[in-house]
Amino acid sequence: MSDLVTLSEIEAAARRLRGVAVRTPLVRLPGTELSIKPESLQPIGAFKIRGAYAAMTVGAVPVGVVAHSSGNHAQAVAYAARELGIPAVLVIPHTAPELKVEACLELGAEIVLVEPTLEAREGTAARLAEAHGYELIPPFDDLRVIAGQATIGLELLADDPHLDVVLVPVGGGGLLAGVATAIKLSGSRAKVIGVEPSLAADARDSLRGGTPVSWDPAKTARTMADALRAERVGDIPFRHIAKYVDDIITVTEEEIFEAVRRLAAGAHLIAEPAGAVATAGYLAHRQALPDGTRYAAILSGGNVDPALLFG
Amino acid sequence: MSDLVTLSEIEAAARRLRGVAVRTPLVRLPGTELSIKPESLQPIGAFKIRGAYAAMTVGAVPVGVVAHSSGNHAQAVAYAARELGIPAVLVIPHTAPELKVEACLELGAEIVLVEPTLEAREGTAARLAEAHGYELIPPFDDLRVIAGQATIGLELLADDPHLDVVLVPVGGGGLLAGVATAIKLSGSRAKVIGVEPSLAADARDSLRGGTPVSWDPAKTARTMADALRAERVGDIPFRHIAKYVDDIITVTEEEIFEAVRRLAAGAHLIAEPAGAVATAGYLAHRQALPDGTRYAAILSGGNVDPALLFG
Repeated sequence: MSDLVTLSEIEAAARRLRGVAVRTPLVRLPGTELSIKPESLQPIGAFKIRGAYAAMTVGAVPVGVVAHSSGNHAQAVAYAARELGIPAVLVIPHTAPELKVEACLELGAEIVLVEPTLEAREGTAARLAEAHGYELIPPFDDLRVIAGQATIGLELLADDPHLDVVLVPVGGGGLLAGVATAIKLSGSRAKVIGVEPSLAADARDSLRGGTPVSWDPAKTARTMADALRAERVGDIPFRHIAKYVDDIITVTEEEIFEAVRRLAAGAHLIAEPAGAVATAGYLAHRQALPDGTRYAAILSGGNVDPALLFG
Repeated sequence: MSDLVTLSEIEAAARRLRGVAVRTPLVRLPGTELSIKPESLQPIGAFKIRGAYAAMTVGAVPVGVVAHSSGNHAQAVAYAARELGIPAVLVIPHTAPELKVEACLELGAEIVLVEPTLEAREGTAARLAEAHGYELIPPFDDLRVIAGQATIGLELLADDPHLDVVLVPVGGGGLLAGVATAIKLSGSRAKVIGVEPSLAADARDSLRGGTPVSWDPAKTARTMADALRAERVGDIPFRHIAKYVDDIITVTEEEIFEAVRRLAAGAHLIAEPAGAVATAGYLAHRQALPDGTRYAAILSGGNVDPALLFG
C-alpha cells in the first residue's frame, strides 16, 4: 500500500465486507434536507466493523488479533475475529462504558483493562501482540482500517450521487479520512465536513495548524461522546484529512443531546452521543455549512442504554 | 388484476417504489437467530408507504386521493400524494395518537376526524371521495396495496435466500398477505407466520375458522398496539392469507413491551408497539415456531414518542 488509500483498495474492501457489514440505507430526517447513514445498524452497533474486518482480511488471516479501543473498535475486532474463527485479545480503558465491555466478553474476546491514556493502551497492546504472536489491529492509524471505513463513502454516493455536503464524526480520524477519500476519489463534488465535540476539538486544531495536535485526556474526558475522546488524530488519517477534508466544525454537548433526541423522535434511530455529532453539526450549524440542498450525516454508532437517554 | 396478486405485479410495484421507499436492510438482533427488517426507517416511519404509493401509481395518477386509517396509512397516503403533487383528504378516528395526526397535517393533507368504527371510517371516506372526484386508497383491502407491501418479501429473500421462518404483524392483513404471497410465489420454503396481540386476535380466529371474523372495537382498543386494532381482516388480504400463510400466533402486552425494549437496547431501533409484535413472537414463542436457524421479523413501524417508552 502507498501513502494514501486508493479507490481500488476501497472497492476491494467493499467486496470483502459483503455479507459481513450491513448495507445501510440513507434515511431522511423529517422536516430537514438531511439524510442519515445509520451505521448503528451494524452487527456491533457501530461502523467500526468495516475497518476491523477489512484490516483482518487484506492478506492471509492472522492466527489471532490484539486491539486497543474505548469500546466500539474493541467490539468490532471481537466480532470480526469470531467471524473468522480466530482469538481476540482486547485492551480497554477502565473508564469505558460497562455496556461496551460486556458486549466484548459476550463475543468471546479476552479483556485487559488499562489506564485511559493512549500510551498505556498502545504499550499494552504492542506487548500482548508480541507475546502471543498475534497481529495488532489499530483503531484508526492504519491504511487497511481507513479503506474499510471508506466503504461508507462509496455507499453514500451509490444511494445519492448528487450529495452536496457529507458530515462525518471525528475521533481518531479513521472514519473521516476514509469517507473523504472515497468521496473525492469517486469524483463527487460533495464537500466533506468533519464534526467533533467542542470539548474534544483536537482534529479542528490539527487541520487549522497543518499538523496533528494532542488534547489532554483530562479535557476530552468531559464530553459525553465517549467514542470521540481520542487524544489526537492519527498520523495516517491526518494525511488523508489534510488532503481531502474541506473543514472541521465543532458542536456543544447540548447540541449533541438535542441531535440524539431528534434522531430518536424523527428517524426512529437510537444514537450514542458520539454517533449524533454529525447530525448535530447540521441541525445547529446549517447556516455555517457549504450551500446545498442534499446533506448527509453519518450516524456512527448506537451503543448506549436507551433508558439513560430518555429516562 | 386477478383474484390474487401475482409475482409480476409485485415486481412491478418494486420498480415503481425505487427511490421512494427506503431499501431497508436486515439487522441481526444480538444474541438471537432473528434478523429485523426495520420498516420504521421508511419516510413516514412505517411500511405503509409501499402499499399507498404502489396503489397510486399502477395506472394514471389520480387527481386527488382519500383514505381512512388509524394513522400510519394516513401518513403514507399524505406522503405519497405530496410526492406525486396531488391533494389528499384523510379520515382518521379521533382516538388515533396525536403524533400521527400532526404528522399528516405537516405533510399538507386535509384531516377529517370520525368515530373509531370501521363503518364510520369507510362511510365517510366513500362520501368524500365521491364529493371530490378523488380516488379512495384503502388501507389493506386492495390488490394494488397488497402488491406494494409484498415488495418487503422480495427484499427479505434478496438479503437472505435461506430464511426458515418469516414473522409478520397482522392488523387488516395487507402486510401479511403481501409478504406471504411474495415469499411463496418466489419459491422459498420459508414458513410465514402472522403475529397479533392476544387482545386483537381476530386474524388468528379468522384463519382457524376459514372465514374473516370481527372482534368488537371495544375489545381490540385494549391493546397498546394501536396500529393493529383493525376489527377484521379484509376479504382480499384474507384470500391470500388462507392460501399462503402457515400460521398465526398471538403475543401478550407484556411480551410486546419487552420486544420494544430489546429492539431499542439490542438493535438500536425504535419500534411502536404494533411494530414490535413480530419480534415478540420470536422472543416469547420461539419454541412454538417452525424449526430453523434463520428467522426474520418485520418491524412494521416506529411512530411513537420515545419518552413514552423509556421514561
